[in-house]
Amino acid sequence: MNNRSVTIMPLGGVGEIGRNCTVLECGDSIVVLDAGLMFPEQEMLGVDIVIPDFRYLVQNRDRIRGIIVSHGHEDHVGALPYLLRDISAPVYATPLTRGLIENKLRSRTLREHAQLYTILPGDEIPLGDLRITPFHVNHSIPNAIGLAIRTPIGLLVHTGDFKIDHTPLEGRTTDLGQLARLSAEGVILLMADSTNAESPGYTASESQLIDTFHRVFHRARGRIIVATFASLLSRIQLVIETAAEMGRKVAVAGRSMEENIAIAEKLGYVRFPPDTRMTLDQIATLPDHQVCILATGAQGEPNAALARMAAGRFRQVHIKEGDTVLFSSKAIPGNETQIHRNIDNLFRLGANVVYGEEAGLHVSGHAAQEELKLMLNLLRPLYFAPLHGEYRMLRIHANLALELGFAPEDVFVLDKGDRLILDDSGARLGEPLPVEEVYVDGSLVGDVGTTILRDRMALSQDGFVIAKVAVEADTGHVAGDPQIISQGFVYIPESEALMQAAQSAIIDVVDRYGPEVDDPEEIAERIKRRLQQLFYEETRRRPVIIPLVTAA
Amino acid sequence: MNNRSVTIMPLGGVGEIGRNCTVLECGDSIVVLDAGLMFPEQEMLGVDIVIPDFRYLVQNRDRIRGIIVSHGHEDHVGALPYLLRDISAPVYATPLTRGLIENKLRSRTLREHAQLYTILPGDEIPLGDLRITPFHVNHSIPNAIGLAIRTPIGLLVHTGDFKIDHTPLEGRTTDLGQLARLSAEGVILLMADSTNAESPGYTASESQLIDTFHRVFHRARGRIIVATFASLLSRIQLVIETAAEMGRKVAVAGRSMEENIAIAEKLGYVRFPPDTRMTLDQIATLPDHQVCILATGAQGEPNAALARMAAGRFRQVHIKEGDTVLFSSKAIPGNETQIHRNIDNLFRLGANVVYGEEAGLHVSGHAAQEELKLMLNLLRPLYFAPLHGEYRMLRIHANLALELGFAPEDVFVLDKGDRLILDDSGARLGEPLPVEEVYVDGSLVGDVGTTILRDRMALSQDGFVIAKVAVEADTGHVAGDPQIISQGFVYIPESEALMQAAQSAIIDVVDRYGPEVDDPEEIAERIKRRLQQLFYEETRRRPVIIPLVTAA
Repeated sequence: MNNRSVTIMPLGGVGEIGRNCTVLECGDSIVVLDAGLMFPEQEMLGVDIVIPDFRYLVQNRDRIRGIIVSHGHEDHVGALPYLLRDISAPVYATPLTRGLIENKLRSRTLREHAQLYTILPGDEIPLGDLRITPFHVNHSIPNAIGLAIRTPIGLLVHTGDFKIDHTPLEGRTTDLGQLARLSAEGVILLMADSTNAESPGYTASESQLIDTFHRVFHRARGRIIVATFASLLSRIQLVIETAAEMGRKVAVAGRSMEENIAIAEKLGYVRFPPDTRMTLDQIATLPDHQVCILATGAQGEPNAALARMAAGRFRQVHIKEGDTVLFSSKAIPGNETQIHRNIDNLFRLGANVVYGEEAGLHVSGHAAQEELKLMLNLLRPLYFAPLHGEYRMLRIHANLALELGFAPEDVFVLDKGDRLILDDSGARLGEPLPVEEVYVDGSLVGDVGTTILRDRMALSQDGFVIAKVAVEADTGHVAGDPQIISQGFVYIPESEALMQAAQSAIIDVVDRYGPEVDDPEEIAERIKRRLQQLFYEETRRRPVIIPLVTAA
Repeated sequence: MNNRSVTIMPLGGVGEIGRNCTVLECGDSIVVLDAGLMFPEQEMLGVDIVIPDFRYLVQNRDRIRGIIVSHGHEDHVGALPYLLRDISAPVYATPLTRGLIENKLRSRTLREHAQLYTILPGDEIPLGDLRITPFHVNHSIPNAIGLAIRTPIGLLVHTGDFKIDHTPLEGRTTDLGQLARLSAEGVILLMADSTNAESPGYTASESQLIDTFHRVFHRARGRIIVATFASLLSRIQLVIETAAEMGRKVAVAGRSMEENIAIAEKLGYVRFPPDTRMTLDQIATLPDHQVCILATGAQGEPNAALARMAAGRFRQVHIKEGDTVLFSSKAIPGNETQIHRNIDNLFRLGANVVYGEEAGLHVSGHAAQEELKLMLNLLRPLYFAPLHGEYRMLRIHANLALELGFAPEDVFVLDKGDRLILDDSGARLGEPLPVEEVYVDGSLVGDVGTTILRDRMALSQDGFVIAKVAVEADTGHVAGDPQIISQGFVYIPESEALMQAAQSAIIDVVDRYGPEVDDPEEIAERIKRRLQQLFYEETRRRPVIIPLVTAA
């Protein structure tokens, strides 16, 4: 195969936030960058998660040289268990990311068969015709990397999720020196994070939070409960240190945060000062002003610790007058309503709640416009492909490049399955690969599609009505009383008249057509249409109608 | 009855944004302030709108002296048709509000029987033991009023929805002079809008938008499409004037906006400069740089003009390269996803889209914290009840009052149905009235409740399975093959094995218990449990299961 041609194909993370997955192909080598999941949108009823369409990778499993995971967030790592069910390839990740992956591969079979390799910034990973060198970037989880990808036709750079934080709490800045060296080497293609492309200016530094947390902790008289993301380990470390300095102990509420802290503590990414860590039961015995609780549920997730506290159903923590609850987080669009409901409930229980942008208790982990421009100007690639973002973000990121002087024909806003081909003659789009939505619902992957979702949507709006009627085989007339069973349609105790009208309508249809029509399907169809009409006239609702016509 | 006691009871608008309705009672007089609707939250499946529980008003209909509507927004006026179906009372409103109400009372019967009266700021409206004088306030719709309510025990003030805009586009400011006179008279109770209580500082003036719109219009080369709220008439006027100044004609896309503009134009609240107004068909014949289209759909409503343009299914306007689409609006929480989807689609079609807070194309119609403090300090009431807001907003508004020196016992955060009683001895809470959620779904009001919503939720997640089996009356064994019908559960073409397993399970249950058990209900229950178990094991889904056991 021609290894002087490189193909870049995103399977996710373009036109959407989530399920990042980019496929690199060169000669007969395939390398996969990230394998993330996406949380379902509102209209994906009953769907648990959405994953990339891995069919192309499964079909070409023998050519996959490796999977590199840029950091440990769900939208970069969450679909790995699904990918590893079908393909066997080495997985490369930095220590913390690897720790989180191991925890994620719960099924013993998967964990035993997975080939996991630890990599560090500066390592050179030869993968077939590609050689990959990770470099350190700042993000809202430690140990995040971007990738320098050396190919037979030259150097590509993939930023991963990044921001440029000159004073990060984890200590190391995005490796600008390394980026400058890559730039000097000459970059053919830059692929960059677009998540915050809508935000002008610079994203604030994590260290800006030190003062804010101190001030807010200083004001609180009673217990302090901090809700944040379980993966935001530098934030968690900041809360631990602030608490310890102010004479408070720290307990953790929420399984995912406990697990992440355990992994991070083992690897040195989270440290508790001596005598700071306590269990929830231990901390309950302390005076209020010595208590700090780290909790999951900053997005209002109904089963997370904070939502259960807000609803008064968390065993060890009962919210009371004097408590201060801090939201060190930003609402992911779509979650606003459930977050607000929790805040309301916490206020109702007497807590003081500090939340929202004005509170200054959160900074983003993604680069804003000036940082994106800096990355573009620092690397000055020949070609540019914005990744990781909904379509408008990719478009705005592309527009930033145009403002910096890039030619429109050198900027590629890709869609899922699009193939960007780079070779000695330049860059162009190839024939796109058809990709489908892959919904995971329960233990089944991929069976839920438009039909099932349409049915669920109809049922969710007006419920269903089963109309069961027996027809005498010899006369074609109704035998016995038709039976009506409904759920989610109308309030039964008040709908006697409507149900009687439905029964009469069924009898009427059968008596009129039964003697002439042999086909019970046709009778059923006529009952269905008649009931649809009746119910719509009487209620302006359109329940799903299931006619069951049996011979008696 | 004792008319030296006044009761204030909110039936909505507290603990929620929407369906504002406050009941005032004095002696045997009842006055209703506003009768608004609320749009359903995500989990209120199939519900069209939510209205206040009017039962108390219906029970006491003979004592209702009047209904005063503060302005023409749906959350203040939208439930009026439902209230007027059951009670007959005079409705008082300013000219524009009255025009919008007339349009709303579509049913001829309602419109013919409604007693509508036009009021103006400064009028004195005697309603039984109460005398009410409206005063002008700024809000995001013209002709909005607050109310001075004179009672036998003294003066109450209700702000309505307001902001303090010193340079409003409609010309008149919130009547601070009148508020100062009321303050001098001595205010017992202030009830005030809390919608923006979370926002520090001052809400920006509408007139700040003049420059922004000019700048954005100046930059656009092609057509301009402005999406905004159909009720935001001063904004609509600003767009019309900017367009006219820049040599563009204006057409309107969207029924609600057309209707509102027609009403407002007749009453003088919207004016088109000569030769500016065009139909969509006329404007389609002009060069792009002379085109400005006002469109509904700023909240992403799927059937509004903008969403149809974004989806490529609006007959007269096909979005193309060079179009500029402006969002002069702010996302109502919960609508973010559908708004973003429209923006993405507009970008995909080639438009430049200007949206978000940074764009500066929208200002709020509600008072921020400093304005709320100004209102409190200007009126210095004895007692204060924040209204119009979700619980956290009411709480924060109450906290502002405490910062200003109000005593905690003089500040009342009310819930729906709470009664605040004012008399010569002071203010206290009375026995609350039990109020229920009232959902409107189709043509039925109030029948949808927790049972129906729970059923719809279950159906929306995993669909249903009907298991139909005939049992031989004499032997108790299965007659014929059991029949399985499902919707929204699994993808049928790939589920043959599962359905066969279900049939076998049904046969097994009937053959085991049928000969012993006489009660078909019990057999049905056993089938249900067996299938629940089978389906959960095989799919981790929990469809609603309807067993139908018939005798053969």
